[in-house]
Amino acid sequence: MHLVASSAVVLFSGGQDSTTCLAWAQAHFAEVHAVTIDYGQRHRIELDAARRVAARAGVPHVILPCDSFRALGGNSLTGDVAVAAGTDPVTQLPNSFVPGRNLIFLTLAAAYGWQHGITDVVTGVCQTDYSGYPDCRETTMVALQAALRAGMDAPFTIHAPLMHLTKAATIHLLWDLGRFDWLADSHTCYNGAVPPCGACPACLLRARGFLAAGMADPLLINSMPQ
Amino acid sequence: MHLVASSAVVLFSGGQDSTTCLAWAQAHFAEVHAVTIDYGQRHRIELDAARRVAARAGVPHVILPCDSFRALGGNSLTGDVAVAAGTDPVTQLPNSFVPGRNLIFLTLAAAYGWQHGITDVVTGVCQTDYSGYPDCRETTMVALQAALRAGMDAPFTIHAPLMHLTKAATIHLLWDLGRFDWLADSHTCYNGAVPPCGACPACLLRARGFLAAGMADPLLINSMPQ
Repeated sequence: MHLVASSAVVLFSGGQDSTTCLAWAQAHFAEVHAVTIDYGQRHRIELDAARRVAARAGVPHVILPCDSFRALGGNSLTGDVAVAAGTDPVTQLPNSFVPGRNLIFLTLAAAYGWQHGITDVVTGVCQTDYSGYPDCRETTMVALQAALRAGMDAPFTIHAPLMHLTKAATIHLLWDLGRFDWLADSHTCYNGAVPPCGACPACLLRARGFLAAGMADPLLINSMPQ
Repeated sequence: MHLVASSAVVLFSGGQDSTTCLAWAQAHFAEVHAVTIDYGQRHRIELDAARRVAARAGVPHVILPCDSFRALGGNSLTGDVAVAAGTDPVTQLPNSFVPGRNLIFLTLAAAYGWQHGITDVVTGVCQTDYSGYPDCRETTMVALQAALRAGMDAPFTIHAPLMHLTKAATIHLLWDLGRFDWLADSHTCYNGAVPPCGACPACLLRARGFLAAGMADPLLINSMPQ
């Protein structure tokens, strides 16, 4: 493969963390591509948020489909899994949650990178607010990096700049990168509400982060009546 | 997760190698599931072959969709890749070949396994006839196994019983397993022909294997005029 110097692919959901990663990547690499996985998100406004932030950043933005998880999650496939009626009260994930999603998403981002001669992959996974997701841990990233290197015969590096940051520190990082205003377009709410519902665990986690950071969330300011 | 003792998931394409793996798995595990990835195969008869062989084996057979590779391969997504007009003369893969496919497929098979309490995953990858596919190598399987274990927090083992076998040895293995007749339903031809074209690299590779094994291919016997 022909390597493109100083370029990176950001696995980009359009949420607060990957928005920060996009800004971080632009500060560290000359060329940045954003890859969003469309896995059948319950709320399509997540994809809209990703498009808006990527447009702000002025980076090539690719939305890659991945229909495997919807198939794995539902009962239409195997016939032995009941349709998930609700979400897990702790993780707020659908009962049909499929493990290893980050492994797949990062491998797809790496495959996209390989096609473009890019072997630096940036992800917003974070061990600090690790809540039962083994695929967000640093040990997983180290192991996956080795698998990507071997499996694609290319010198991949996975960057996880938020791995050991608190939410407050992530907010300060974006501020320091001079891209704080991007958060006005990012998305977090589990209920897919615009303006955000302010009551779901994701909204509360985000609000607690801004409280700890001692800053106001541009998304909320943006949602206020003028 | 609740582990199911002595059970395995076979990543199953319906070709000669994964058919042999299915027989191998049934000889080594009490319960076997077959997982076929529908990634938009050019020849849908590959999926038909997989269905037939799985039915012979009497195992639960799941066909998981994965539309990511078609998107990565084409030009509709990024606009900067010309539509592949032909295939690479050496690998016979579409010019749009996307690396890391086995990483994704095996991770999907593992995710399916996780959902069913199964952590043994069987694949027909083979280093012996390794022809430029880094994701068929043993080093890749070892690295991926570590990534699966870390990423899903489960004691996955990847079994690759054909890794160091010649095609002839693979044929003898299936004979010894008493499932030689299954090959009558397996599929190999790159041109998707039934009976197989006998001229494409896949047909030639298969024919050379049977020649070296000193045996007749049940698929060809089956295709002969009665």
